[in-house]
Amino acid sequence: MPTVALAQFCATEDKEANIQKGLRLMEQAKENGASLICFPEMAFLPFFPRIRADRSFFALGEPIPGPTVERFQQRAKELELVTVINVYERAAPGEYYDTSPVIDADGALLGISRMMHIAELPNYNEKFYYWEGNTGFPVFETRCGKVGIAICYDRHFPEQMRALALKGAEVILVPTATSTSVLEHIWAVEMQAAAIANQVFVAVVNRVGTEGEMTFFGKSFVTDPQGEVIAQAGEDGEELLIVDLDLTLIEETRQMLPFLRDRRPEAYGKIAESESTGGAPDGCVRSH
Amino acid sequence: MPTVALAQFCATEDKEANIQKGLRLMEQAKENGASLICFPEMAFLPFFPRIRADRSFFALGEPIPGPTVERFQQRAKELELVTVINVYERAAPGEYYDTSPVIDADGALLGISRMMHIAELPNYNEKFYYWEGNTGFPVFETRCGKVGIAICYDRHFPEQMRALALKGAEVILVPTATSTSVLEHIWAVEMQAAAIANQVFVAVVNRVGTEGEMTFFGKSFVTDPQGEVIAQAGEDGEELLIVDLDLTLIEETRQMLPFLRDRRPEAYGKIAESESTGGAPDGCVRSH
Repeated sequence: MPTVALAQFCATEDKEANIQKGLRLMEQAKENGASLICFPEMAFLPFFPRIRADRSFFALGEPIPGPTVERFQQRAKELELVTVINVYERAAPGEYYDTSPVIDADGALLGISRMMHIAELPNYNEKFYYWEGNTGFPVFETRCGKVGIAICYDRHFPEQMRALALKGAEVILVPTATSTSVLEHIWAVEMQAAAIANQVFVAVVNRVGTEGEMTFFGKSFVTDPQGEVIAQAGEDGEELLIVDLDLTLIEETRQMLPFLRDRRPEAYGKIAESESTGGAPDGCVRSH
Repeated sequence: MPTVALAQFCATEDKEANIQKGLRLMEQAKENGASLICFPEMAFLPFFPRIRADRSFFALGEPIPGPTVERFQQRAKELELVTVINVYERAAPGEYYDTSPVIDADGALLGISRMMHIAELPNYNEKFYYWEGNTGFPVFETRCGKVGIAICYDRHFPEQMRALALKGAEVILVPTATSTSVLEHIWAVEMQAAAIANQVFVAVVNRVGTEGEMTFFGKSFVTDPQGEVIAQAGEDGEELLIVDLDLTLIEETRQMLPFLRDRRPEAYGKIAESESTGGAPDGCVRSH
């Protein structure tokens, strides 16, 4: 049974201090029996997308593999701890992503998942800083289970949760940087429903702390495949939330709620079409 | 602003009495200011799918248009009330569906929506009695808004809710026959999440009463596009739940939560593929 540690994290302007703290939390997770640790979105940097279109932040991008990832790979290997971090990735000149590298318990970089859906909302000026992800919905076979990632805004898209489940994910990790907003009342509801629809565990790990006008509200949590919130952190401080996941509950739930058996994929073509809800005005060319 | 009446209904073995009650409820809905009424799944018949593979029930099937639908069309026209019923449809010899005819306020039959996803679970022996629906996910432009239907088990499939929203639905009606089960704790959660994901109203109307081992638990409800349950009926008795829907909340919510803007349909091909989660054993032909 995997034991997941969610590192509810507060980052400062000091990247090196943030990384040091992250590496220490890995030790603490291991001491508490964890086999996997997941950090929030942008854990080791300030959440700069709160600031509008400031080109100077592009300099924070780094390659993968690269210096930050390598330090976490080294520590993952020492501790035999599956480790999922989040990095502001510079993939090529001018090409930046919101990326979660997945490191196995032997320190191997299994791969990356890039945020597919990019927000553009008050305090989330993401379409300036991030390209849309192009990794699709990979599932990583780690030492402690099949893991899929939905980064922050990705979690609002049932398509992503479904695709990850169809590809075999047992646990969907959601690294996020979520602050007080209209969405707060549905924080758990959306993920409970995603867990039920797909009969998977969903583990959400949020930042805490205040940066500019934003206050990240913590409340990291795990929902089981039946939509029960089985553990939740507080909303103020840093916290290492340690949760045992009984993966056998996935099959048990799929026997009771065989939604995957009863899907009608041949009828779902509309989901993958590019036409807008409103279509185009008559006489306009519709692009597909 | 449309006013929706959800007819939380208890059916007996006496079809004619059930229909008479339904026609009276339409009057009552109109008197209470409703512009649309929706009945539960199989409202005018006993819920016979609780009984395993009994061929005699096929005789209850009737065509659409047909005698039951015509009576409700007539009353809809008299009352100027958009009316959504549910009928055990006999479409051709040996071809049966779980079907919701949608009747406009002038009595016109706008079309039908057939249940797309068929359950096969304890007390729900549906794969014997129903063919899989072939109507896709139609949206009906009624006198009081654009209405999509998700019949009972259909509501568990995020693909259906998304397809209906993409086709312009403002209100998704869910006629259901839901009894006490493992799903009861997520009764509202799933539909709140579907409402948020698509920024639409979702109105669920359930049966009440006990039939054999099944007790239908009522609790018909409406969630607004922000996932707030704005009205809910009790769990015991029949009830006509009357709810005003402020459709302007859809656009307001879409401005705040622009998930439809930020979808990545070109990445969602997996959703419409027929391959199973586990794939096929090596060497086997995979069917698509």
